[in-house]
Amino acid sequence: MERLHLLAQHTEQEGMMTRTYLTAAHRGAAGQIAAWMRDAGMTVRRDAVGNVIGRYEGTEEGRAVLMTGSHFDTVRNGGIYDGLLGIVLPISCIAAWHRADKRFPFPVEIVAFSEEEGVRFKAPMLGSRAIAGAFQQSVLSNTDTQGISMREAMQAADLDPSKITAAAAPENSIAAFIEVHIEQGPVLLNENLPLGIVTAISGATRYMLELEGLAGHAGTVPMTMRHDAAIAAAEFALFVEQRCSHIDGLVGTIGQWQVPNGATNVIPGRCTLSLDIRAGEDAIRLAAARDIEAELARICAKRGIHSTLTKTYETTSASCAPWLQEGWRAAMALNNCTPRMLPSGAGHDAMAIATIAPIAMLFVRCGNGGISHNPAETMTTEDAGTAADVFMDFVEHFDDLAAKVSVTI
Amino acid sequence: MERLHLLAQHTEQEGMMTRTYLTAAHRGAAGQIAAWMRDAGMTVRRDAVGNVIGRYEGTEEGRAVLMTGSHFDTVRNGGIYDGLLGIVLPISCIAAWHRADKRFPFPVEIVAFSEEEGVRFKAPMLGSRAIAGAFQQSVLSNTDTQGISMREAMQAADLDPSKITAAAAPENSIAAFIEVHIEQGPVLLNENLPLGIVTAISGATRYMLELEGLAGHAGTVPMTMRHDAAIAAAEFALFVEQRCSHIDGLVGTIGQWQVPNGATNVIPGRCTLSLDIRAGEDAIRLAAARDIEAELARICAKRGIHSTLTKTYETTSASCAPWLQEGWRAAMALNNCTPRMLPSGAGHDAMAIATIAPIAMLFVRCGNGGISHNPAETMTTEDAGTAADVFMDFVEHFDDLAAKVSVTI
Repeated sequence: MERLHLLAQHTEQEGMMTRTYLTAAHRGAAGQIAAWMRDAGMTVRRDAVGNVIGRYEGTEEGRAVLMTGSHFDTVRNGGIYDGLLGIVLPISCIAAWHRADKRFPFPVEIVAFSEEEGVRFKAPMLGSRAIAGAFQQSVLSNTDTQGISMREAMQAADLDPSKITAAAAPENSIAAFIEVHIEQGPVLLNENLPLGIVTAISGATRYMLELEGLAGHAGTVPMTMRHDAAIAAAEFALFVEQRCSHIDGLVGTIGQWQVPNGATNVIPGRCTLSLDIRAGEDAIRLAAARDIEAELARICAKRGIHSTLTKTYETTSASCAPWLQEGWRAAMALNNCTPRMLPSGAGHDAMAIATIAPIAMLFVRCGNGGISHNPAETMTTEDAGTAADVFMDFVEHFDDLAAKVSVTI
Repeated sequence: MERLHLLAQHTEQEGMMTRTYLTAAHRGAAGQIAAWMRDAGMTVRRDAVGNVIGRYEGTEEGRAVLMTGSHFDTVRNGGIYDGLLGIVLPISCIAAWHRADKRFPFPVEIVAFSEEEGVRFKAPMLGSRAIAGAFQQSVLSNTDTQGISMREAMQAADLDPSKITAAAAPENSIAAFIEVHIEQGPVLLNENLPLGIVTAISGATRYMLELEGLAGHAGTVPMTMRHDAAIAAAEFALFVEQRCSHIDGLVGTIGQWQVPNGATNVIPGRCTLSLDIRAGEDAIRLAAARDIEAELARICAKRGIHSTLTKTYETTSASCAPWLQEGWRAAMALNNCTPRMLPSGAGHDAMAIATIAPIAMLFVRCGNGGISHNPAETMTTEDAGTAADVFMDFVEHFDDLAAKVSVTI
């Protein structure tokens, strides 16, 4: 917990937690993390995308890596636990093993992913995608608000963009990837449980919706002659809420909602909305999206509204490997923790790594109503301790776990 | 129709119809209107608030005035018929009588009200309120966007603010006030009728509503744990629509609607709305307002939302005198027009005059879906002609009409 507060000093904005890709604050945090990794008995390397990778060598030659980690960038004015917990916690665990002279047959690597949030260059998960061999070269030309391209920023930070491809992990080199992360939601808090086992990282479908009706005078157009774009939006929003409720892991959110140039005495002629649908299971998300699109068409036909629905983003879900979930469950049993299974509605680096290795995630209870990406983000020292105990038990039994399901690692 | 286009040249913004109180465009239009009034055989005076008043003298001494008129200011980028029709049409009628050497026992006055929209100093109906003796001295200190006070603007236009009180019409000096105005709505257009008889100018209740829920991550907070301020707003808006539908003359509008700093992946923690409720009958409006307030409380309690509802404006309705409505009906019968009775959902100068004299309004069909306060505002020459015929018959039978109901004029 002390280290999380120390890391928070590497910020772009005094009094706020803001650390975006390759800024001075970001490089400062990378240096601090590398130092702690070395103190914990790890060898440290930095790859071409800026990931900081600490390796705790195994006792047997040629074994695949048990990889863990999370990201060390933040959103603007975010929290100090998001991402960072998944770096600092394993470093403490390795340090404890190092002090006790304990090693495993397999190597353990902690990756401090250089970038997950995508704030500076509007491209998320740069670090984990590079390791997964899925870094998109086109984003190198993305520019930040000052017009600096990602390529220029990397060169200024002594990173060589031409070597990003080489940052990809060799095939079958990762036995599993496990990520510890704060929940960023209220489920564990509400059920009074310290830890949760992630079943899948939700897939998402995002849209922008533009509704066009007919503006008119609020006093002179009878209700039955209106084509009110905002009322159509209201009916749509209530359908989204109803359709996404009561199905485990399915959520639908209208986060942006605006009547452009709205005035008290003018019937809204236009309304713009965003829509975000997520679910741990793709079939559930896609069925909801289909129904929501159909209902939109029905509402607009009924109300004489023209709609333009643009899909802006779509990603499939990433399942957590059942045998790794079983590993968390066993480790939690050793620590008298009730296992709560839940999908992760937020994206995480594990999602990128899922394309090359089995993944699993351990969620730690978030305080303050489950708020995250916000200075009010919080968690307790006690929960961090419980998570570390479970993490250590997981790693210590990892070889048995893999053997039980005949996974070659 | 030609004169309406000529008047449109007095604008603040080239290519747009914008004429706010006491600007050069406004003074230019006043001069043009005064010239037309003189050409029509009227004597013209200007009062201290800038109203231009043309008087067509009657044949009998000491008779009360039949007053008509409307406003010659406009909203920004508005239409060329709103207000102006009610000035230019009677001038043409007086000119016709003048050419035919026809006078009435009573004087007819046309008032070109200097200001109704309230754009420049955020205070509407300055001209008609001054004549009604209801000019609020406090608005003289209101400033425009350049920091010029209304008092300074009046002095620069050779108007003496200290004489506004004297602009009030003497008691019982106005036998009736009749206003011709475009409908600014789609009712007549939809029913394929050129003219409508206004039953009342609707009263209005306006609110600003601030809803506060709890912001959260769109992926991580299950639907049942949300306190989404925008979804509460959606439920509220649908209730407003339902409660105000199917009751003649009642309308409810949410014109402003915003999730401040909304983001695709954030559950709205705040939502701000405006609400405007109008009805020709006050009891209908007040009952709707009561039900809507109660439903808001119910929705917010159910959803765990904090609401702040602020009443920003309230005005009672102004009834049109039944005997004057009967006068329109008779005049329309002479011109083979079907009388369509309807309330005016928009405010008009007649509303202010209603406090000192019986009022009536004649609506003329608006084209283009009934749009107004917009460059697309339109009406036909044919409808203007029909309105002028009906107006002339009304005035020519005014004495009989008053006698029939024993109104002393």
